[in-house]
Amino acid sequence: MTPRKKLEGLVAATVTPMTPDGQINLSVIHQYVDYLVSEQNVKNIFVNGTTGEGLSLSIQERKQLAEEWMCQGKDKLDHVIIHVGALSLLESQELARHAAAIDASGIAVIAPSFFKPRNKDELLGFLQKVASEAPTVPFYYYHIPALTGVKIRVEELLDGIREQIPTFQGVKFSDTDLLDLAQCINKNEREQFVFLYGVDEQLLSALAIGTNGAVGSTYNYLGRKTNLMLQAFAKPDLALAQKYQFLMGEFLSFVIKLGFGVAQTKAVMTFVSGIPMGPPRLPLVSASEEFIAKAKAKLESIVWPDGD
Amino acid sequence: MTPRKKLEGLVAATVTPMTPDGQINLSVIHQYVDYLVSEQNVKNIFVNGTTGEGLSLSIQERKQLAEEWMCQGKDKLDHVIIHVGALSLLESQELARHAAAIDASGIAVIAPSFFKPRNKDELLGFLQKVASEAPTVPFYYYHIPALTGVKIRVEELLDGIREQIPTFQGVKFSDTDLLDLAQCINKNEREQFVFLYGVDEQLLSALAIGTNGAVGSTYNYLGRKTNLMLQAFAKPDLALAQKYQFLMGEFLSFVIKLGFGVAQTKAVMTFVSGIPMGPPRLPLVSASEEFIAKAKAKLESIVWPDGD
Amino acid sequence: MTPRKKLEGLVAATVTPMTPDGQINLSVIHQYVDYLVSEQNVKNIFVNGTTGEGLSLSIQERKQLAEEWMCQGKDKLDHVIIHVGALSLLESQELARHAAAIDASGIAVIAPSFFKPRNKDELLGFLQKVASEAPTVPFYYYHIPALTGVKIRVEELLDGIREQIPTFQGVKFSDTDLLDLAQCINKNEREQFVFLYGVDEQLLSALAIGTNGAVGSTYNYLGRKTNLMLQAFAKPDLALAQKYQFLMGEFLSFVIKLGFGVAQTKAVMTFVSGIPMGPPRLPLVSASEEFIAKAKAKLESIVWPDGD
Amino acid sequence: MTPRKKLEGLVAATVTPMTPDGQINLSVIHQYVDYLVSEQNVKNIFVNGTTGEGLSLSIQERKQLAEEWMCQGKDKLDHVIIHVGALSLLESQELARHAAAIDASGIAVIAPSFFKPRNKDELLGFLQKVASEAPTVPFYYYHIPALTGVKIRVEELLDGIREQIPTFQGVKFSDTDLLDLAQCINKNEREQFVFLYGVDEQLLSALAIGTNGAVGSTYNYLGRKTNLMLQAFAKPDLALAQKYQFLMGEFLSFVIKLGFGVAQTKAVMTFVSGIPMGPPRLPLVSASEEFIAKAKAKLESIVWPDGD
Repeated sequence: MTPRKKLEGLVAATVTPMTPDGQINLSVIHQYVDYLVSEQNVKNIFVNGTTGEGLSLSIQERKQLAEEWMCQGKDKLDHVIIHVGALSLLESQELARHAAAIDASGIAVIAPSFFKPRNKDELLGFLQKVASEAPTVPFYYYHIPALTGVKIRVEELLDGIREQIPTFQGVKFSDTDLLDLAQCINKNEREQFVFLYGVDEQLLSALAIGTNGAVGSTYNYLGRKTNLMLQAFAKPDLALAQKYQFLMGEFLSFVIKLGFGVAQTKAVMTFVSGIPMGPPRLPLVSASEEFIAKAKAKLESIVWPDGD
Repeated sequence: MTPRKKLEGLVAATVTPMTPDGQINLSVIHQYVDYLVSEQNVKNIFVNGTTGEGLSLSIQERKQLAEEWMCQGKDKLDHVIIHVGALSLLESQELARHAAAIDASGIAVIAPSFFKPRNKDELLGFLQKVASEAPTVPFYYYHIPALTGVKIRVEELLDGIREQIPTFQGVKFSDTDLLDLAQCINKNEREQFVFLYGVDEQLLSALAIGTNGAVGSTYNYLGRKTNLMLQAFAKPDLALAQKYQFLMGEFLSFVIKLGFGVAQTKAVMTFVSGIPMGPPRLPLVSASEEFIAKAKAKLESIVWPDGD
Repeated sequence: MTPRKKLEGLVAATVTPMTPDGQINLSVIHQYVDYLVSEQNVKNIFVNGTTGEGLSLSIQERKQLAEEWMCQGKDKLDHVIIHVGALSLLESQELARHAAAIDASGIAVIAPSFFKPRNKDELLGFLQKVASEAPTVPFYYYHIPALTGVKIRVEELLDGIREQIPTFQGVKFSDTDLLDLAQCINKNEREQFVFLYGVDEQLLSALAIGTNGAVGSTYNYLGRKTNLMLQAFAKPDLALAQKYQFLMGEFLSFVIKLGFGVAQTKAVMTFVSGIPMGPPRLPLVSASEEFIAKAKAKLESIVWPDGD
Repeated sequence: MTPRKKLEGLVAATVTPMTPDGQINLSVIHQYVDYLVSEQNVKNIFVNGTTGEGLSLSIQERKQLAEEWMCQGKDKLDHVIIHVGALSLLESQELARHAAAIDASGIAVIAPSFFKPRNKDELLGFLQKVASEAPTVPFYYYHIPALTGVKIRVEELLDGIREQIPTFQGVKFSDTDLLDLAQCINKNEREQFVFLYGVDEQLLSALAIGTNGAVGSTYNYLGRKTNLMLQAFAKPDLALAQKYQFLMGEFLSFVIKLGFGVAQTKAVMTFVSGIPMGPPRLPLVSASEEFIAKAKAKLESIVWPDGD
């Protein structure tokens, strides 16, 4: 593995393109990469995660997708993080080895959510067994208690984590407990862990306490706008950053009221990018035509500060 | 598939024997089958379910286990139900085809619990796609909302289910909503579905409303006692049945207070049967020595009505 | 206090009659008592509980209602249990003293649900301070974790309770954890506590494990039918008891699907008894006309085994 | 009512001083007011709320406390907001009339949490009936879904609220859903509602999206430090603001791990201010000596940026 620059800024949690009959559609990944880079100004991706329906895919499919993203992203993307979490430790380990073999920029693991680790040691035990299968690949913990039901505080988890997971690099922090996040950030300054916030609709609040960047599905289609928010925040021009956050919230709260999940994200990404992302896999079902029409009209109605 | 007699009475949800280093241990399955039949008077099993850590195993392991149980159970067991549920529909379908190929007595599917079906149609869509891969194998839905978070009422699910799943045969009903169960039982008398109750500690309450039998981990080591409860109930000698239920509850409420899960069930089964069931797989961790000592002492302290 | 016979069988959790403009309507209590006794064959009541909107009333209203029920029930009812629970210990104590002064057959207290007791000692501390204000009145704990969020096991609570609450008499057990209930019943046989089940739609399952009776809103309008179920169970004619439970379930599951709470119970009780129970108090709102029409049609469509 | 300047900045959610035997202790309120103003630089208070154990007090006690705070705060405090929420609408209305009579700066109402409003209309119906009893007093909605279980989005609630509650003035927003808060703030700029954030440990994140100020128990003893954070944020000196937020978080996450509630807040306030706040009322129980010693040591160990 060649040294890479540290991960920061925006990371798009990619959706998994599928054909109308529900097979993974590798043929549009090339186009997808170009779109992210040129249209959204996003050069980092998080593959096979929640948005990517990773846990709904077979092991074989996850490997094929990881390979295609790595291949198409070569020389175009900065970081390709492969999510290798699974309910089965064996499968997660197999995916970790595969990610290492294809030279992924990082791997990430969600907490197992059927049998749930009940404390730090049980969670760490699981994560360590995966990380050690890819001993040269930066490791990220994917914290999303609302989906997994695993509510172990990250601050506690990180205490001494490098001793057990030498490759530990950071956290995809998808929770609204910003006390936990703030303590993580401040306590780990010296170790330079990466904290990427994962609740897109309140990213500005995480920036305010020092998060390094963000990973989420929104950056597939609002990456450019969010980058403008990051720039405004860095200036600092807080009023302008608030304006961007509010407008993103306008769209997101609108679609959340309609019912917004991975299926709907695929639909939005399809009409915004023009790349056919296809249906989701069961138990998810396709977004309705009504949803698509309303979401499209809403997004088009927003007047952004940059005049777009 | 040869016609089989209808499933009723007790079904043991088997644990998955593992070696000390965490590999599946097929070598003791033979002994396990004999133990269930001769010591516990239980001739039906539910394989690779929650108790069997099915979702923590790889697909390959699940197939190997299913084959071994079918092989060893031949001519000894009445029903071998293979749980084929998975987060990934593709994997679940693969397991269903495999179960059909080895002539399993039935297959069962738990609701996917990461992306959760939100209504009857979404759940049925998923189940139907699995069942149709094994078109001659009786299909059971495994209802356990406390673990999956999928709280769709079974009564509603069953309305017209045979039209979409012709092989539909019954439900492993692991919930305390006995209104739902009672309505299921009464509405489906003519169709002769099977309702197996899965909350072992309150089985008598489910018998009172007409359930056909039970499936659970407790019947691995208290199958004989539970069969005596079933007999008492059938007489009817309700006072005697209550005595058995209370004594089972004495043990179960005692261990629940200590912390009782699959790891602890494996430990109890090991000391009761003498068959080494081994550790669980991460994120589960082995029962403590203290737990084992206390659980053993408690179980031995119980004086059963049959003088045992 | 004169000795009373032990509480058993059915207890109606009464609704609180209100005038159209939302004042408590004491004038129909007389009629309500006669109706319960003569039409429903129910001679025990639970006043100012959940169904009675006790926590939505002022202290003064709760006292007036308790007095009226005691007055009208004299020589007609066997047991009048006054619920005196409140978020404020002081108010609960005041209500307990008042109940003692009017010679109530018993008092009951729900766990406080804003600040929640976190363990047995904290809950017992609260209950004891109320009970001791009415030192000659039988005391009942009202266990309803789904509403209060207080999930302390009753079996644990009862261990040694008479030492702290000498007047302790029993539990209104409104939960689906029948393991807990069974252990309570069996452990306390000698002390002869009373266990009244409070999840009406699955009463038969609680009878099967030895509960003494039931307290619930359903017995306001289906008391006579439920009494027939109790008789069938006592015979025992389990098939007949199941038939009654199923038919009650038919109605209850139907209205639950429509949205069934205290407001709807008042509406049902109004059309069944002919006594105007009036609207509920905010934040509850009146049942819709559509609900009333559907519930009425459903109830009338049921053909009971006694030919009614 | 004389016109008052708009509420902004910090509001201390006061604890209710009690004597060792559990009576409210009005005698120290005078000292408490002086302490807040001179030592904490806090001139606004929120009385009889969660921290003040408002729902554990009798109506009479709540009135006495409100009067004493108004009396002692006269000419010293800018805003005295009286929380008048109660499970019973009648009691809440009585408290609202009383607050108006003593010329409170505002009243606040928490959503009723036993019977829960299920939608905007039911919640608004309740709030409107309280607000209209104090037609000249600014009205605040107290949003705290984690405690009440009432999760109605505030953005939705506020849409058109002035038509039903002409006195509506703002929200005590005690939730981590910052999307909801951001949309509220942006949509209501013109109407100039006040949004006071109530999750003290992540106040900086709420400031970042434009909240007007904060109300919480922390400002009883860390008001001065928090004011320095507000000043740093206003400059803007975000790094300094982060430092303050992190250090407050250091203390709060430490005590949260030990178990931190109203009883513990009273203990902390006692040792910081020297004013005896006394025990809480049941079902809460006093903080342990061990907690007090640890919390004191932790607080004293913190080195603040201002050299204190």
